[in-house]
Amino acid sequence: MERQDNRKPNELRPIKITPGYITHPEGSVLIEMGQTKVICNASIEDRVPPFMRGQGKGWITAEYAMLPRATEQRNIRESSKGKVSGRTMEIQRLIGRALRSVVDLSKIGERTIWIDCDVIQADGGTRTASITGAYVAMAIALHQLVEKKVLKELPLTDFLAAISVGVLPEGCEVLDLNYQEDSTADVDMNIVMTGKGEFVELQGTGEEATFSPKQLQAMLGLGEQGIQELISQQKETLGSIADLVNQD
Amino acid sequence: MERQDNRKPNELRPIKITPGYITHPEGSVLIEMGQTKVICNASIEDRVPPFMRGQGKGWITAEYAMLPRATEQRNIRESSKGKVSGRTMEIQRLIGRALRSVVDLSKIGERTIWIDCDVIQADGGTRTASITGAYVAMAIALHQLVEKKVLKELPLTDFLAAISVGVLPEGCEVLDLNYQEDSTADVDMNIVMTGKGEFVELQGTGEEATFSPKQLQAMLGLGEQGIQELISQQKETLGSIADLVNQD
Amino acid sequence: MERQDNRKPNELRPIKITPGYITHPEGSVLIEMGQTKVICNASIEDRVPPFMRGQGKGWITAEYAMLPRATEQRNIRESSKGKVSGRTMEIQRLIGRALRSVVDLSKIGERTIWIDCDVIQADGGTRTASITGAYVAMAIALHQLVEKKVLKELPLTDFLAAISVGVLPEGCEVLDLNYQEDSTADVDMNIVMTGKGEFVELQGTGEEATFSPKQLQAMLGLGEQGIQELISQQKETLGSIADLVNQD
Amino acid sequence: MERQDNRKPNELRPIKITPGYITHPEGSVLIEMGQTKVICNASIEDRVPPFMRGQGKGWITAEYAMLPRATEQRNIRESSKGKVSGRTMEIQRLIGRALRSVVDLSKIGERTIWIDCDVIQADGGTRTASITGAYVAMAIALHQLVEKKVLKELPLTDFLAAISVGVLPEGCEVLDLNYQEDSTADVDMNIVMTGKGEFVELQGTGEEATFSPKQLQAMLGLGEQGIQELISQQKETLGSIADLVNQD
Amino acid sequence: MERQDNRKPNELRPIKITPGYITHPEGSVLIEMGQTKVICNASIEDRVPPFMRGQGKGWITAEYAMLPRATEQRNIRESSKGKVSGRTMEIQRLIGRALRSVVDLSKIGERTIWIDCDVIQADGGTRTASITGAYVAMAIALHQLVEKKVLKELPLTDFLAAISVGVLPEGCEVLDLNYQEDSTADVDMNIVMTGKGEFVELQGTGEEATFSPKQLQAMLGLGEQGIQELISQQKETLGSIADLVNQD
Amino acid sequence: MERQDNRKPNELRPIKITPGYITHPEGSVLIEMGQTKVICNASIEDRVPPFMRGQGKGWITAEYAMLPRATEQRNIRESSKGKVSGRTMEIQRLIGRALRSVVDLSKIGERTIWIDCDVIQADGGTRTASITGAYVAMAIALHQLVEKKVLKELPLTDFLAAISVGVLPEGCEVLDLNYQEDSTADVDMNIVMTGKGEFVELQGTGEEATFSPKQLQAMLGLGEQGIQELISQQKETLGSIADLVNQD
Repeated sequence: MERQDNRKPNELRPIKITPGYITHPEGSVLIEMGQTKVICNASIEDRVPPFMRGQGKGWITAEYAMLPRATEQRNIRESSKGKVSGRTMEIQRLIGRALRSVVDLSKIGERTIWIDCDVIQADGGTRTASITGAYVAMAIALHQLVEKKVLKELPLTDFLAAISVGVLPEGCEVLDLNYQEDSTADVDMNIVMTGKGEFVELQGTGEEATFSPKQLQAMLGLGEQGIQELISQQKETLGSIADLVNQD
Repeated sequence: MERQDNRKPNELRPIKITPGYITHPEGSVLIEMGQTKVICNASIEDRVPPFMRGQGKGWITAEYAMLPRATEQRNIRESSKGKVSGRTMEIQRLIGRALRSVVDLSKIGERTIWIDCDVIQADGGTRTASITGAYVAMAIALHQLVEKKVLKELPLTDFLAAISVGVLPEGCEVLDLNYQEDSTADVDMNIVMTGKGEFVELQGTGEEATFSPKQLQAMLGLGEQGIQELISQQKETLGSIADLVNQD
Repeated sequence: MERQDNRKPNELRPIKITPGYITHPEGSVLIEMGQTKVICNASIEDRVPPFMRGQGKGWITAEYAMLPRATEQRNIRESSKGKVSGRTMEIQRLIGRALRSVVDLSKIGERTIWIDCDVIQADGGTRTASITGAYVAMAIALHQLVEKKVLKELPLTDFLAAISVGVLPEGCEVLDLNYQEDSTADVDMNIVMTGKGEFVELQGTGEEATFSPKQLQAMLGLGEQGIQELISQQKETLGSIADLVNQD
Repeated sequence: MERQDNRKPNELRPIKITPGYITHPEGSVLIEMGQTKVICNASIEDRVPPFMRGQGKGWITAEYAMLPRATEQRNIRESSKGKVSGRTMEIQRLIGRALRSVVDLSKIGERTIWIDCDVIQADGGTRTASITGAYVAMAIALHQLVEKKVLKELPLTDFLAAISVGVLPEGCEVLDLNYQEDSTADVDMNIVMTGKGEFVELQGTGEEATFSPKQLQAMLGLGEQGIQELISQQKETLGSIADLVNQD
Repeated sequence: MERQDNRKPNELRPIKITPGYITHPEGSVLIEMGQTKVICNASIEDRVPPFMRGQGKGWITAEYAMLPRATEQRNIRESSKGKVSGRTMEIQRLIGRALRSVVDLSKIGERTIWIDCDVIQADGGTRTASITGAYVAMAIALHQLVEKKVLKELPLTDFLAAISVGVLPEGCEVLDLNYQEDSTADVDMNIVMTGKGEFVELQGTGEEATFSPKQLQAMLGLGEQGIQELISQQKETLGSIADLVNQD
Repeated sequence: MERQDNRKPNELRPIKITPGYITHPEGSVLIEMGQTKVICNASIEDRVPPFMRGQGKGWITAEYAMLPRATEQRNIRESSKGKVSGRTMEIQRLIGRALRSVVDLSKIGERTIWIDCDVIQADGGTRTASITGAYVAMAIALHQLVEKKVLKELPLTDFLAAISVGVLPEGCEVLDLNYQEDSTADVDMNIVMTGKGEFVELQGTGEEATFSPKQLQAMLGLGEQGIQELISQQKETLGSIADLVNQD
């Protein structure tokens, strides 16, 4: 099978993670996966939301947005519409849940890590790129707290990345769908996984279609491989910080 | 292992589907799964939303809500808050997508099927009970159109049901979690499946936890079995209408 | 005169009040008046709204909603519209005011009684059925506080029920209008009255019509009789709790 | 009994109706009842709301607001809160219904009469003053259409005014309560009545109190007398326009 | 050049400032500039907004609104639209900033002065009339605090007034544009100035047009002269209070 | 005088304009003025808003936003707050007005140019940088229409740039204030000017301060010089497109 951009079924798009993209946030990266570009910022706030107070633990919350012209057609801003769409809320909740699974919240004190993922150019896979990039921004921000002796050690329990897999109309399972593939695929699945190969989140959807147990297994295999490549890339970007991740 | 309500790991709670629960909707059922009770209504509207017009196809859209005191603690109404929560939106989108996967939308003309799932009592698994009940309400509503000769045949391509599976803190995989189990589980997965055993949706989440490929397979096995039991129950409720579902 | 459902002008529709309808609320009833069905739940919260704090008194607040398909035509949810309609607000305020008139708020401490009236099927008279049913739910909830020794005595000073009366286009005054009668009536009046025959609320409206003092007196007579029948029904449902209402 | 401002129980406050208060609206009056001052404007729009289109009939809709400092304590603007309160909605709906009862909507063509009642100073009875003043503004606006030969005749079928009555804590029934009386009254009733003495609206409320049938009759008597005085004042303001009201 | 209402280019419209217009506010004036009429109320609140607490200083905040029929065409109320327009926000922020520039906030303690400018009739220049009138209302309110010995001295450091200037399509610079002039002008500039002739705010806009440095100087000259006339009028209205303004 | 970043009073920060920053929009630039970075995108839509239809003319509308962490402290997203702030609305209106002054709207047909200015890093002067950058993005987008033969000629009548000037507490007038200067300045003025040296917009504000006519002239002089430097930079970025701007 020939993919529209000549990739093999199990081939990721070119990845580039630029740390220190913006100066104000404690952690900031620009992640590019092919034509998809997301600014991921991590901010540390010295308090937790009301429902968490007094427990001595921290919290991680994520927000996600697109510039109006990140897409082929201009989208109306959610601030102009006066409300956040269901799609945006789903993605925000997913990013937050995913990141919380690899942070020992009891080790960061009553602090909130705000993750902001702003898509400046979209070509499919924006939510998975957001998770992969946000992990790096968060690691940098947390490491800064270690450097400042606010935290004793990096409270990360593992690496974390995310990727999409899917089934194209021809029946072929592929890794890392771009926008054109995604909009025609029968099945779209997002996989969030740790460095140790454990699942954090699995969301497979057959919009006006279904998928068999066999297709599920094929997609899981592609995803696992893609995640490992992404984590290699994260390690390279993080350099010595990566060595402080405590995977035990 | 002993479950808190003495069920076996692979045992569903008692199911009851009452058709004709409310008189006005074209299809209406009360579904009870243990202490979880949901009114599922299907309404037929003779037009489609703007983005679908002129295509000669139909659409299915779903809304989900809880009575304020469906839960142990009273919740603030979303109408009072002036906005629908992220959780509600996720569930609404899930129900709509799931039902669309087993309806041949090209056979219902430019009509919208409105699905309303209103939880009057909640004890875990409200979104999966909503899907299972809504399928029955929708089948009844569509059958009414067949009876009235508006449609030539029942446009359903398969049966559809949904169930939750999870991993309890002791590490045991279980089927159909009630609220107490759900709120302590390490992993929660919702499975939507057709009568032919194809996946429609798979959403597995490890909130502050992860799950291994092996645990995933065990959960998938439990889910498949539970779905088949639910579909048997749907067939019994639907009676002769079930025979008109065209699974080819 | 013949009413469309063969009732006499002064005849109520069949009434049924089912206590314990839902398990979580402190008080819960399903009230049915003919085809009108309302779930009335009473919840006790151990604090009062800000404007009441520090006065040592309690408060009662009511919310009212309809399932989208409680009516012949599906209504848009108020949560989707992002605001509560004027009609809903009027009804909520009416229910709250009515119930507060028969509770000695100084005897319940700084607690709020939340009344939720959710109409699952509508055929006219939903606001009056809500008041009649909510009184019973509230009495049960308050009695639970007496049973638990939180309150020394039942803080109810009287019984309370509500009914609609109206003038049909033929000029005939009738009791307890169903939807068809209500939508064609020249005059619609809602009466809320206590067991001792005192008025709590009187709301008569001639939409594009008026009514004479003589018609007013005839409607008041019908209403008084209907209220007494409803209160008999409430007493039967409440059983021994009814004996604890302190009408002095 | 002595009222706080030395009025007799059946005595209205001084009334003043100034026509032509603002230049742009087709009809505009300032109505003063004691210290209560309301600007009532009537605007004619050459179309009706969507639900009325194609019926060849007109519509009347009313809006009501208070300046933030119309009251002793400054109120937050409803535009700043982003929503209209339940109280405001109740009043708006009441004003609209009341005015529609004395206009032959089939004679005004597909036009909307917008009534705007803006309270610039409040001392009780703002909703009844609004109705009484709005009637005059509307009559002037409709008369302008007759003058311009747009309408053949004045489409008013009667006069219309409104007044409050109530029961003070001492048990005395009084007419036209000012703010101090209103805030301590046991019972508050608003009466809207036509020139022929027919009721249009009757809203009696016992907030944390009740009222007997005998008290109701006493209040109705006071109200009827007050309404007649208000209508005399309206006729004086309207001059020759009053002669064109067709009370047959 | 002939202006449409026969004024000379440097001629203001007739000004009238009526103090004590409404009774409840601490300061209240009706300002009329030709056909433009604005009620300006100043209210004193004994606390400051959260961001100002604990600094021992006061705050001034302004709100601006129009009655729906202040204009030739009826406008939809901002409370009905559920949000305040950009134009309204700009004006509110301008009024607040302008007034704060002549009050020594450190001398009024932790109090908020609420300025409400409600336009009851509009004919151009409503924002500048609001500032000119609000200054007088505020001075009266602050003087009341001096009279009550709450403040030791009047905390006003100067007089303050505002006026519009513009360039008509014929190229002529004019003072105090009415609505007809404003809607056709090439350039519209609002000037806020103190009694000592210092600028507080300068907002010049060429909507689909531009203006030269020379035209700017001509407009500034007209504005300065108009402001001095307005301040004379303010002094006359304030009488002896004007002598307490501390312009050093 | 020494400025905090060693600039002279009349010295701009380093400017960099990167065209083609994002691929989807018809025109896209990243503008950097010192540490302030704004993505300016221009999108062409083939229709105009309802109030412009049928006039054969085009329209330009602008939106402005900041990433939450563009600033030192994280800001809450306006989409989360559910409304756009007054500051944002002021800026959006300013950008739109400014750009419309140099486009011959009658030459672009019934098209809307959407301008999106998204601040990814803020250090003062974001609104003026937005205008300067948006002009370039718009010119590129319009030129594309010329290239595609949709338009006969570039409908730009002049160049356009904007800059801030101000008065520092020491009394010194300076050009192009950064955030630290801006937050302590006595006076802040934004100037929008054309290539021919005509003013488009002038907004000078003395927050809790005032400025003299002499200071105004000094600021205007600085601004004019800065604008000319910015326009040189724009011309360099636009290359041959700049030659098509029709300044007659």
